[in-house]
Amino acid sequence: MHHVRFRDPAGAVRTGEWHGDSVSFGGERYDLDEVDVLPPCEPSKIVCIGRNYAKHAEERDEEVPDRPLLFLKPPNAVAGHGDTVTLPAGKENVEHEAELAVVIGEQCRNVAAEDAEAVIAGYTVMNDVSNRDDQDIETNWVRGKAFDGSAPLGPALADPDHLPDDASISLRVNGETRQDSSIEHLIFSIPDLVAEITSYMTLEPGDVISTGTPEGVGPLEDGDRVEVEVEGVGVLEHRVRQD
Amino acid sequence: MHHVRFRDPAGAVRTGEWHGDSVSFGGERYDLDEVDVLPPCEPSKIVCIGRNYAKHAEERDEEVPDRPLLFLKPPNAVAGHGDTVTLPAGKENVEHEAELAVVIGEQCRNVAAEDAEAVIAGYTVMNDVSNRDDQDIETNWVRGKAFDGSAPLGPALADPDHLPDDASISLRVNGETRQDSSIEHLIFSIPDLVAEITSYMTLEPGDVISTGTPEGVGPLEDGDRVEVEVEGVGVLEHRVRQD
Repeated sequence: MHHVRFRDPAGAVRTGEWHGDSVSFGGERYDLDEVDVLPPCEPSKIVCIGRNYAKHAEERDEEVPDRPLLFLKPPNAVAGHGDTVTLPAGKENVEHEAELAVVIGEQCRNVAAEDAEAVIAGYTVMNDVSNRDDQDIETNWVRGKAFDGSAPLGPALADPDHLPDDASISLRVNGETRQDSSIEHLIFSIPDLVAEITSYMTLEPGDVISTGTPEGVGPLEDGDRVEVEVEGVGVLEHRVRQD
Repeated sequence: MHHVRFRDPAGAVRTGEWHGDSVSFGGERYDLDEVDVLPPCEPSKIVCIGRNYAKHAEERDEEVPDRPLLFLKPPNAVAGHGDTVTLPAGKENVEHEAELAVVIGEQCRNVAAEDAEAVIAGYTVMNDVSNRDDQDIETNWVRGKAFDGSAPLGPALADPDHLPDDASISLRVNGETRQDSSIEHLIFSIPDLVAEITSYMTLEPGDVISTGTPEGVGPLEDGDRVEVEVEGVGVLEHRVRQD
């Protein structure tokens, strides 16, 4: 099943089922244009992974790290399916990064890789929107990666069995394919990421681990329409604007 | 007034008044050993400032930045007055950093420096506990600065008028003074920090800006008792353990 959070026509927030072109809850079915699709979870933090595909590290002229490169996005970064993200003002180079996102199902700490499956609620899709103007000159990527709307997330939470081991991951801007790879190429596996992160910090239900982006990152501009797809998980759509 | 959140002897969470050796709520007064003092706010994020005192940048062999160096601590980092923080396992060099922390009072974005006062609920005290083993070798300071318990915060939220412009800031380990300076030496002022941060992201009520540490940082070890004091704001006490 694919679980979706949405605001129904009466304004109530529901967690129902995603059907691609409609959503349902309590025996009622709604077309997407009748509802407001909300982010599929409410993370207290998003733990992101940098350079987790070798060809992306290469295109950014960076080495592949010898352990996961971690960085953080706070709750203000979250945006939903169908939202329009306002890019930071006055920046020349803001880029898309298609990512498979892991959603945590229970509070956990010190989880061994072999036990990671038990704490994963499911998967969703994220665009790790990245303001390179600042990212490339700051010590920690806060202006670069943690600005409002820098984490469009959705459309739904897919149960774990929907994700093939070799799921394709792709991103299109205005219909043109920019990124096209497979999660087979992840350097650090999802169980290894859960183990590494929880050896330092508690993860809470709804927290997100975003697993990194493959090669093909590129610019976003005012008015662009972005689709990020992970096979079996879903297609996240959003727009961007720049004032 | 100094506002304190605490769990009363019946287990109810109260927001009352801090009197130094006791707390009160609804006409009842409790000795500190009768209650559990909680962190004075529940931040969705802590935005921290690195190298905001010149002598600390110098002791870390770093340049003073030309704009605020920002990094993040998530909610799992928060600990309270009187708590015992478990340091990350197997690390050689974990250090204390005494900081003045600003608590935000209302949701805000794009706040001009001259309007910053209106969004500040008050001040508290933070120890930015820092795991140098990891911090010194990672790109973003997540293992180094965002681990569980890395942000002891408290004991109370002091109304803004309690903070002198030249407030002393100090830290003692087992009674021995390690840090002793004044917020006069802040490189970037609090209004400038509010303006810079909110030009990128929304701050929520209870969010914290921790303003950086003066010189004198040093090691913490199993069993240490730490007191961090900001004149007019309060004395945060906590212990550390290392398994």
